[in-house]
Amino acid sequence: MTADPLPSWNECGAKRGILSFLARVTDDASPDFVPLPERVAVFDNDGTLWPENPIPFQAAFGFDELRRRVNGEPALGDSPMVQAALAGDFGALLEDGYSGLREVIELTHAEVTADAFRDTVEAWLATARHPRFGRRYDDLTYQPMQELLRLLEQAGFKNFIVSGGGTDFMRVWVERVYGIPHERVVGSSARASFDLRDGVPVLTKSLEHLFVNDKHAKPVGIHQFIGRRPVICCGNSDGDHAMLQYTTIGNPRPSFGLIVHHTDGEREYAYDAVTESTGKLVAALAEAPARGWHVVDMKRDWNTMFSPPEP
Amino acid sequence: MTADPLPSWNECGAKRGILSFLARVTDDASPDFVPLPERVAVFDNDGTLWPENPIPFQAAFGFDELRRRVNGEPALGDSPMVQAALAGDFGALLEDGYSGLREVIELTHAEVTADAFRDTVEAWLATARHPRFGRRYDDLTYQPMQELLRLLEQAGFKNFIVSGGGTDFMRVWVERVYGIPHERVVGSSARASFDLRDGVPVLTKSLEHLFVNDKHAKPVGIHQFIGRRPVICCGNSDGDHAMLQYTTIGNPRPSFGLIVHHTDGEREYAYDAVTESTGKLVAALAEAPARGWHVVDMKRDWNTMFSPPEP
Repeated sequence: MTADPLPSWNECGAKRGILSFLARVTDDASPDFVPLPERVAVFDNDGTLWPENPIPFQAAFGFDELRRRVNGEPALGDSPMVQAALAGDFGALLEDGYSGLREVIELTHAEVTADAFRDTVEAWLATARHPRFGRRYDDLTYQPMQELLRLLEQAGFKNFIVSGGGTDFMRVWVERVYGIPHERVVGSSARASFDLRDGVPVLTKSLEHLFVNDKHAKPVGIHQFIGRRPVICCGNSDGDHAMLQYTTIGNPRPSFGLIVHHTDGEREYAYDAVTESTGKLVAALAEAPARGWHVVDMKRDWNTMFSPPEP
Repeated sequence: MTADPLPSWNECGAKRGILSFLARVTDDASPDFVPLPERVAVFDNDGTLWPENPIPFQAAFGFDELRRRVNGEPALGDSPMVQAALAGDFGALLEDGYSGLREVIELTHAEVTADAFRDTVEAWLATARHPRFGRRYDDLTYQPMQELLRLLEQAGFKNFIVSGGGTDFMRVWVERVYGIPHERVVGSSARASFDLRDGVPVLTKSLEHLFVNDKHAKPVGIHQFIGRRPVICCGNSDGDHAMLQYTTIGNPRPSFGLIVHHTDGEREYAYDAVTESTGKLVAALAEAPARGWHVVDMKRDWNTMFSPPEP
């Protein structure tokens, strides 16, 4: 008998489901065998691989960065939207078709070189701490999902992040934290510009042709960046509904859908239909039984929540 | 003494250069050692891995496909631009800011499902033959470059295509022909749309947010799709100039630039400054000596031109 590859998972339908799915698709004598190049697994990030509360981690970065910017350039603080952001009034930022949010993103994620942005995110990760858990943000990943990532790798799968988070933000830490290389990160992104400054190549971030990789855009991003239909899809909210459908409905290959359901207010957060912004899980949850998507009850199905702290 | 890993290359500066570069960057005792995740090599396709004459192969596909479409829908033939395309009048398509070319691309590459487009390209490849060499287009790749791709793989590099060609067009055959997986193809692409038709997920191609991956856009595409600065860049025209600069100027890692110079009118085509459209090589060639980019003289440096025909 071999060791349990998913020790942080209690016995549950999702655990049994993934193990039997992998046994079928990797057995070349099975009619469900999936050839190696087609072993594509996609994972949402916020709420699926790491938490998205009390606010999405990239929003925490944005607000901290805004505070830092306003300290250096007080005139920025004259903007009502900057004031709303600094006061934590997320609602105001979402009014008027998200125009405030766009202003904050523009200030913190654009008109900066790609190198400088990476350095800013690194510096933030090194000092910022999650308000409830007191740990580095990039140290707060779900241990059961880390085990799943490793198991899939061992089964010959390529793991991809397919997240509404910013691609440039995620690439700073995703390889170190998940073992996922940069080119397997599909997030929200835009078109940088390239020029030579004093003879040296410089890439500058912008919001030109912004691609917001959420909801119906996720299958679009998968097509444009990965170019292959996934056979495994893991998400946690209605933002992942379309990619769950794309992965599992009418796929000529066997497929597997999984929804991480946030039910554990003690060890993490309990939410689904409660929140009005990120993490709403209503339509996908309702469709799960008919589609055979496995719903993970975090409180019941996971015996460990977070990965051990980095030494 | 081990076998020559580049047998189709004669002794030349480019061959010596790549072998000594690989020896340095893979030796972990060398100050030039490059860790595995950073071993990124980018290759242009048209004119670098396969020919681009008498017309780029994707243009040949487009014109053949246009002919097929007009046969079924004769009204399409009323358009002056369609007539120009069918007459092979490439110049007319490029007038007015490429508006004719866009019309042809729209007709042949958009408003079609991603699955149907793939099937169309497969069907074309199966029947179309190169007018001079009489072989399948996807069977006409440069043997010396195939050897280089294999050598880099063995040295732990990830090879990426960074081409002006269409991503969806290339992904149909690139894995079979070059051993390069779909997610490592950075080409021209646009935003598809996703919906459920009769309950079944469908991706439909469009020209929305078209990204033309050429010239200054190549480093932009590398940033957005790969997210890592390459250390090896191979191209053949001024369309690759910016990515050669991005790879080699001010790179904190050792880097290697290579230009395939089309000098062999007997076995292939001799062109550089002659052509006015694809394949012009003037500025990058002029800058090569100062930058240390290796220029491959195809006639002199390659003892074999094409890969052996598939059985």
